[in-house]
Amino acid sequence: MRVLTGLQPSGKLHIGNYFASIKPMVENQNSGDNEMFIFIANYHAMTSNSDGLSLKESTFEAACAFLALGIDPQRSIFWVQSDVKEVLELYWILSQFTPMGLLERAHSYKDKVSKGFEPYHGLFSYPVLMAADILLYDSQIVPVGKDQIQHIEIARDIAAKFNHTYGEIFTMPESKTEENIATIPGTDGAKMSKSYKNTIDIFATQKTLKKQTSKIITDSTPLEEPKEWKDCNVFNIAKLFLDQSGQEELIKRYKSGEEGYGHFKMYLKDLIWEYFKEQREKFDYYVNNKSEVDEILQEGAVKARSIAKKNMLKIRELVGIY
Amino acid sequence: MRVLTGLQPSGKLHIGNYFASIKPMVENQNSGDNEMFIFIANYHAMTSNSDGLSLKESTFEAACAFLALGIDPQRSIFWVQSDVKEVLELYWILSQFTPMGLLERAHSYKDKVSKGFEPYHGLFSYPVLMAADILLYDSQIVPVGKDQIQHIEIARDIAAKFNHTYGEIFTMPESKTEENIATIPGTDGAKMSKSYKNTIDIFATQKTLKKQTSKIITDSTPLEEPKEWKDCNVFNIAKLFLDQSGQEELIKRYKSGEEGYGHFKMYLKDLIWEYFKEQREKFDYYVNNKSEVDEILQEGAVKARSIAKKNMLKIRELVGIY
Repeated sequence: MRVLTGLQPSGKLHIGNYFASIKPMVENQNSGDNEMFIFIANYHAMTSNSDGLSLKESTFEAACAFLALGIDPQRSIFWVQSDVKEVLELYWILSQFTPMGLLERAHSYKDKVSKGFEPYHGLFSYPVLMAADILLYDSQIVPVGKDQIQHIEIARDIAAKFNHTYGEIFTMPESKTEENIATIPGTDGAKMSKSYKNTIDIFATQKTLKKQTSKIITDSTPLEEPKEWKDCNVFNIAKLFLDQSGQEELIKRYKSGEEGYGHFKMYLKDLIWEYFKEQREKFDYYVNNKSEVDEILQEGAVKARSIAKKNMLKIRELVGIY
Repeated sequence: MRVLTGLQPSGKLHIGNYFASIKPMVENQNSGDNEMFIFIANYHAMTSNSDGLSLKESTFEAACAFLALGIDPQRSIFWVQSDVKEVLELYWILSQFTPMGLLERAHSYKDKVSKGFEPYHGLFSYPVLMAADILLYDSQIVPVGKDQIQHIEIARDIAAKFNHTYGEIFTMPESKTEENIATIPGTDGAKMSKSYKNTIDIFATQKTLKKQTSKIITDSTPLEEPKEWKDCNVFNIAKLFLDQSGQEELIKRYKSGEEGYGHFKMYLKDLIWEYFKEQREKFDYYVNNKSEVDEILQEGAVKARSIAKKNMLKIRELVGIY
């Protein structure tokens, strides 16, 4: 199956991103069962970022981060969205097959506007560009969060309308949400999310990592008493990094009444620091070797573009673009 | 001044198109006072044409017609919109600077929907693509009909928003409507317009021309009586093709009471046939020499693209498109 993933270059990645989407994506890639298409969605990111310098930097940083975290450009096609211009031509073409009602009913747009995003046309028409991303590459599976399922439905509706006019041109994409992945709690126990400011970042410095883990909210059981581990945010984050025996050992320490939350937070900090040690080194390497990253992205773009060009040749002919 | 004109490839051109917009455009070109940028708006035409074959044909026919009617690719930059893909990237970028309210207030969209056009996203976002057309080429003057003035205002608003963020990047375009050109009456006396089915086509065959001119509505003054020329549709169309002395001669014939409207219609048909004789021959030549037309359009696209590329380099840097 061909699996397409668009990654937002939205600044620092946190461990919620890692366990909920990056790790499954890399495992999927390494299984070799699927053809992976992975791109950095910098056009999409423009809908919430009008600071050019920061978008450019975060696009590059995202590329470094994803490479460090396991995207293998030999196994996956990995590129930056704006390096394949064909997607914008398809976006315009698909706009002729997108009833306004479909966009007006999109929850994501309404949610963002209600959260204070200004209602700009870019934000509104986001799902059409997303449909173009998906359909341009004949994607079969699109792993998304629950809030994005409607966008895949929109892409399907647009594809069906186009196919109805011109024949079976577009592959019908299907959304896939990772049901069995638990919500990753943030430092306050709510879902970890940048907008809640409760994140622990993957590539934080030791100092930041210490600050972020020490923010984790716990109950007030005194140091010398046994502690409840089940609902403890520290434990629930730590267990992501531990195998069965590691978890059991930590539970023992919770029950012992010999350590306080400060110790467990320190332990968690070290755990995270160690867990991402190798990736952190890779990340630093890529950040300092920009031309190598650019080359990887260019090679990915060439591969993506060759598929895009082939499909657009057919589509342009159908719609009569001279 | 740099003057930009987008021409819709919307099928057969009529003499209303000719006198209201093509003739002034060609005179403007030949005066040598302005830098003329003229493109066939095939992306725009998609908003009202989902028949691929017909769009492709009408794009080619429009190119032949405009060349035959006087566009001189040595004096004007003349190309097909879709040959400069940069316009779609700018369209997406400008979408981030287009408040939804601006588009929701556009009369043209509302009018078209009320006239039965389906409310598709392409139609809705048309003014943003039009803004991209205008701003991409640093256009200073955009000659438009009154119904399009609001679209130029939208382009100015978008440009101002962008400039407010990034500095004085875009030239502020101004609309220009030809005030001193009278409305060209159709065969029923209303404004000549394809949608009113009251047109007389420029490149019609003799037979069609006869049919179209004989449809002109007149009063029922009998053949042997003097006729009122002032409000006569036949006269008012004929005068477009006549100089002062030609008009006086025709008035004499109206007053003489020796001829009927049938004679005048026949006279008008011959007048139109003769007037466009040379252009008709050129049109037939171009239609039969597709590769020559394609070459002219490609040369135009190269010129347009070189400006587009230069401007997009700057704009991409500003907005941080990697």
